[in-house]
Amino acid sequence: MNWEQIESRLDQLLSESRHGQLRGALMMLNPVDIAEYMKKLDREKLLLLFRILPKDVSADVFSYMDADQRQALVESIADAEITALIDEMFVDDAVDFLEELPANAVKRVLQNTDPQTRAIINQFLKYPENSAGSLMTIEYCEVTPDMNVRDALRSIRETGVDKETVYTLYMLDPQRRLTGTVPLHKVLVAAEDTPLMKLMDPGIISVTTLDDQEIVADTVRKYHLLSIPVVDGEGRMVGIITNDDIMDVIEEENTEDFEKMSGLAPAAEPYFKTGLLTLAANRLPWLMILMFTSIISGAIIARFESVLAVNILLSASIPMLMDTGGNSGQQASTLMVRGIALGEVQFKDILKVLWTEFRVGVIIGLALSLVTFIRLLLLNQAGLVLAAVISFSLLATVIIAKSLGCVLPLFAKRIGLDPALAASPLITTLVDATSLFIFFTIASRFVL
Amino acid sequence: MNWEQIESRLDQLLSESRHGQLRGALMMLNPVDIAEYMKKLDREKLLLLFRILPKDVSADVFSYMDADQRQALVESIADAEITALIDEMFVDDAVDFLEELPANAVKRVLQNTDPQTRAIINQFLKYPENSAGSLMTIEYCEVTPDMNVRDALRSIRETGVDKETVYTLYMLDPQRRLTGTVPLHKVLVAAEDTPLMKLMDPGIISVTTLDDQEIVADTVRKYHLLSIPVVDGEGRMVGIITNDDIMDVIEEENTEDFEKMSGLAPAAEPYFKTGLLTLAANRLPWLMILMFTSIISGAIIARFESVLAVNILLSASIPMLMDTGGNSGQQASTLMVRGIALGEVQFKDILKVLWTEFRVGVIIGLALSLVTFIRLLLLNQAGLVLAAVISFSLLATVIIAKSLGCVLPLFAKRIGLDPALAASPLITTLVDATSLFIFFTIASRFVL
Repeated sequence: MNWEQIESRLDQLLSESRHGQLRGALMMLNPVDIAEYMKKLDREKLLLLFRILPKDVSADVFSYMDADQRQALVESIADAEITALIDEMFVDDAVDFLEELPANAVKRVLQNTDPQTRAIINQFLKYPENSAGSLMTIEYCEVTPDMNVRDALRSIRETGVDKETVYTLYMLDPQRRLTGTVPLHKVLVAAEDTPLMKLMDPGIISVTTLDDQEIVADTVRKYHLLSIPVVDGEGRMVGIITNDDIMDVIEEENTEDFEKMSGLAPAAEPYFKTGLLTLAANRLPWLMILMFTSIISGAIIARFESVLAVNILLSASIPMLMDTGGNSGQQASTLMVRGIALGEVQFKDILKVLWTEFRVGVIIGLALSLVTFIRLLLLNQAGLVLAAVISFSLLATVIIAKSLGCVLPLFAKRIGLDPALAASPLITTLVDATSLFIFFTIASRFVL
Repeated sequence: MNWEQIESRLDQLLSESRHGQLRGALMMLNPVDIAEYMKKLDREKLLLLFRILPKDVSADVFSYMDADQRQALVESIADAEITALIDEMFVDDAVDFLEELPANAVKRVLQNTDPQTRAIINQFLKYPENSAGSLMTIEYCEVTPDMNVRDALRSIRETGVDKETVYTLYMLDPQRRLTGTVPLHKVLVAAEDTPLMKLMDPGIISVTTLDDQEIVADTVRKYHLLSIPVVDGEGRMVGIITNDDIMDVIEEENTEDFEKMSGLAPAAEPYFKTGLLTLAANRLPWLMILMFTSIISGAIIARFESVLAVNILLSASIPMLMDTGGNSGQQASTLMVRGIALGEVQFKDILKVLWTEFRVGVIIGLALSLVTFIRLLLLNQAGLVLAAVISFSLLATVIIAKSLGCVLPLFAKRIGLDPALAASPLITTLVDATSLFIFFTIASRFVL
């Protein structure tokens, strides 16, 4: 069955009120797909479907629903039901959900949960947004140095943490400091009386509660981890961040880089969930700044008015110089932003990078300006001097664009700014002004 | 100890030839860090360190080393050692490694591995590059419908798959078709005589061997999976793709989008591993194409020479129009490329998107052109008509840029091209020509 068939089958069961069969059919689906199907339902049907699902499944589905639908559900169901939902959810999902609710609704919901859960959730709500603390869950398996394989398996069975967070066991000393991790796969193949200490990886890779999610993502990516422990300032274990949340963070960080490189303020919501005014407000500041900087290029053109009058080919070359310069610079800056993000390039490499980009600029610049020189002579019947002036300006533009494009993101990183901010379109505007200035200076010397 | 201290400690042990202690110290590190440390060693020390490590650790470290170092190692060690290494490695890592070797070396290595491994590796080498088949590993746990929890745990212990691939059990029918998955965490908390069928998730999410890695990444991201099964054309299970490989694929796909959006051919190697000529060759084609398209903008300027002569403010406005148009278009196209990549925007949404972008264009265009209008009147002492012509052209440019910027990536996706290719800098060049044309048409009507 493809998705359309699944949908129409569910539609039919829903319209015929065959709730038993509907529940059976839904249980065959992944919670992600159930949430997907629910998107097109009205509030009444949404509520019905939600109540048909078993509690643990509905909590899962709830965490995959979008903010509007969660809001609709919360408004429709009784406090007792919300509380049951919160108790069934992972703490990190519950916190995410509460952060989206209006303050009075949060208060109402929290009043109904049991004191222990409430204390934990309140603690989580205090971590700064996008910090490791705000991403973590407290559902993990801890073991102690005196335990063996049998003890560990019994502990898992007793605490009953029925989630993938169980795949790494965390070894804590009596002060609750993290001393090592034991991968569950090692426990499973070892003899029952093997001490856990013998299976432990002593090298601890962890983050602290206040670390930014970018650090979390970089660390997980570097070490290919399934989950990462979170410790407080004294090295005491407080939670773990699971793989699904980490994958979301990696995507978020990538999206943020894409946005910054296109002069967009980072968006908090998906495209269709963002209001028109927010969409406009995210874009206006950079466009305004860049519009003003482009006036510099205009001023350079105005200043060399007399040069432009000599031959129309000079005016006609402006777009070519500006576009090629901007594109060359953007290529170099994109490579740097990615290189920095993936840990391949660092500030200390700056001279090496500059030397590389300079030579790349020479090679590409020569190729482009040679083609342009021939084009001007043959197609545009330009004189030798004029063709040489335009071609040489192009060469200089490409070399400068490549050099600026590679150093600016590295400098931005150095002074603690996001490298993506220093990449295009800022590069484009800077290169525009520089290349026009070179062009007119050379032109006024040789063609006037 | 921070990284510098760790490095100097290892340096010291290495120079004093304290091999026992060195081995002990290395075993405290993560294989990723051991590979990192090895980067700065010469060939002789590299070989020494490599031989000090236990076989299973060295195979792990080997898979994290970069291509040059692997090459250096392979050239230095005997065939028997390489064979032992291959046998210790995961099949997918071994295949990755063999794909990088020169053909004669591959032959030499394969001759020495045992016939069974050789057959498997040869099979893997036949899958197309970047297909699910080329990414998968065959080390996974299969179970049958008649097994219970006790059987499953015994089977894990007996096959001894000592890796994280054990965290999902795959239920196969007698024809080896995948009928469901059993998460290990459910097995661990269930009673010993529980039939696995009761713990099974029946909804199967899988990819086929020939699916592109982009599909693999999208599916895993959508369903938040730890690993994904790979089936052949008849639905028979052939392998799984593990999370660490999937995270690499997601990063690769993101890098490719960044590259395409900056007019770069995708690079196979990290920046510093890429030769100068390859760096240049990756960038030249798009720069050349874009340089030629920018000649159109130049031709438009040349065609309206007489208009330009009327007032220098007209020439001086060219960079502002071109830059603002390019930036506006790039913002819209970036949002589309990300929206498509994350599954938030589809081709069927095109009219909705166009209507949204049109209105965003109007809001932003009005803001920018109002500021420009006032600037031209007050700072540049432009006449009312001239200021109106330039401001109105800016408004039209922004609206067209936003509209083109959103529809082109969607059309590209529709006809099977990568949306990122249709995003900037192609957008920039198209918008440039369009905005200049509008500008001059209006100007020649009103200011001549």
